[in-house]
Amino acid sequence: MAISQRQELAIGIDIGGTNTVFGIVDHRGDISYRGAISTRKHNNVTDYINELYDALLPAIDEVGGINAIRGIGIGAPNGNYYNGTIEYAPNLPWKGVIPLAQLMTDKFKVSCSLTNDANAAAVGEMMYGVARGMKDFIMITLGTGVGSGIVANGQLIYGHDGFAGELGHTTIIPDGRKHKGTGLHGSLEAYASATGVALTAIEFLERDNHRDSLLRNFAKEEIDSRVVYDCAIQGDKLAQEVYEFTGKVLGLALANFVMFSSPEAIILFGGMTKAGDLILKPTREHMEKNMLPIFQNKIKLLFSELKEADAAILGASALVWEMKTV
Amino acid sequence: MAISQRQELAIGIDIGGTNTVFGIVDHRGDISYRGAISTRKHNNVTDYINELYDALLPAIDEVGGINAIRGIGIGAPNGNYYNGTIEYAPNLPWKGVIPLAQLMTDKFKVSCSLTNDANAAAVGEMMYGVARGMKDFIMITLGTGVGSGIVANGQLIYGHDGFAGELGHTTIIPDGRKHKGTGLHGSLEAYASATGVALTAIEFLERDNHRDSLLRNFAKEEIDSRVVYDCAIQGDKLAQEVYEFTGKVLGLALANFVMFSSPEAIILFGGMTKAGDLILKPTREHMEKNMLPIFQNKIKLLFSELKEADAAILGASALVWEMKTV
Repeated sequence: MAISQRQELAIGIDIGGTNTVFGIVDHRGDISYRGAISTRKHNNVTDYINELYDALLPAIDEVGGINAIRGIGIGAPNGNYYNGTIEYAPNLPWKGVIPLAQLMTDKFKVSCSLTNDANAAAVGEMMYGVARGMKDFIMITLGTGVGSGIVANGQLIYGHDGFAGELGHTTIIPDGRKHKGTGLHGSLEAYASATGVALTAIEFLERDNHRDSLLRNFAKEEIDSRVVYDCAIQGDKLAQEVYEFTGKVLGLALANFVMFSSPEAIILFGGMTKAGDLILKPTREHMEKNMLPIFQNKIKLLFSELKEADAAILGASALVWEMKTV
Repeated sequence: MAISQRQELAIGIDIGGTNTVFGIVDHRGDISYRGAISTRKHNNVTDYINELYDALLPAIDEVGGINAIRGIGIGAPNGNYYNGTIEYAPNLPWKGVIPLAQLMTDKFKVSCSLTNDANAAAVGEMMYGVARGMKDFIMITLGTGVGSGIVANGQLIYGHDGFAGELGHTTIIPDGRKHKGTGLHGSLEAYASATGVALTAIEFLERDNHRDSLLRNFAKEEIDSRVVYDCAIQGDKLAQEVYEFTGKVLGLALANFVMFSSPEAIILFGGMTKAGDLILKPTREHMEKNMLPIFQNKIKLLFSELKEADAAILGASALVWEMKTV
């Protein structure tokens, strides 16, 4: 029994700006021993790894010790697959270039691969989600920010340096809204993220100063994408227009992405997809409108069906099955 | 001797809107027996193939007959690699879906592969040009139109349907200039093609009605990208601004493409590159300005060094070396 269990499991870790979630995953994509620690607590990455180790140790013991684990896969913002590093991640407490895969290998005594969080989610979707069997698709994560993972010819597109797929930072509206983090103007993330939706709502309220809206019951600081959604489903016209505008920008962006890699599907993922048809309908309309006829009415626009944390854990763990050596 | 020559050569054919050029190519990329016929002369594709056959026959005989030819590779506008078809090419005389690879195989009794012209040029560049040894690059053809071929992980990106890489039709300026052929607004091709340069010049002349410019010596119908170039190098300020504006739009577009696939280089190709620094400088400036810092100052922006017709013939012939069966 002990022998047959050797290296049949993978650890999948998703490092988010707030929390790090992890699980032990088998080949079928079943996740056991889920857990989480705070990402923000430790400014020193060594302390963070030590806490992660302590949190994982009981689970590792439970499945038969580290010999049962084939490797560790990590999805992290600004994660670089080629180098196993996290590089200048604005939302993480560790600055500069962090050789995380190497540090993890040293601590856990097992191989570790790393990629960015959206790429990990795309791999999770390809192995266990709605992209199963697809060789060409684009995953767009719509959360606090906008991330992406691009699969073409059945492979993730990493680019020559490991940083491909920063679609959230492509310019959709030249000289448009300035992104606070990057300083770029009119990027997709400035509009189609949860942050962007809140900003659009505030802009619309200020522009039409006398127009009635349920959103006026909230202080400016209270307005977030959730509040806008709640008002929109209560029939508030202005809140609905915020989603229409967001879908217009997102749809235009998706049309451009389609004309780049001609994917079978675009898969939307993350908190913003909770808005359902409010976001999906205008997005689809403006995507179709802005494409050449040869692309129209054939690209699937789908919501992910995986739980948000699960997709990332599954995708991260999938890196392990691709490892060449143990 | 006859035996060792068997199937050591490829026919490369580049079908353009005006002319079709072809050559017989060896493994080292040496082109012999170049020739050309008119693309426009025959509205019936069978007549066209017959003329092409007659034009190629003496060359084929010269190299030892059809047994010396391993296959035929074709680059054509709207060429679909998967199906071997040309589909709805607006600039070709044959309408609808043309099963050209099959028709050529039937006529020549040898395998035929087909891809779009920009993809063929990209493959030519990868095998014999400035992209030699690169696994990730984007080729942008700047001619009457704007085409593209994208290589990632050492492979051409075809997409799920064979139509990937229509970067000329991505929207760069929402609600911008309407493209006469596609009806789309603000696409890259509407600005960064030779046609776009002429339109920009005319717009600038009409906008600043009283401003002096050498371009006013030409009738509206006479203004093309060549005239704008000639005036610009003679120091005409307005003509120079036309190229600056064109570079601004192109640079913004390239920044977006970089954030998609993070290529080692972007290679510019085609008639517009004759403008040299006039187009290259503003393009580079605006590309750098619109990218995330992790991409800045590391993407090579290069002009192709292959002769325009050669790149396409070489790229088309390279399809032959990749053929699985003969």
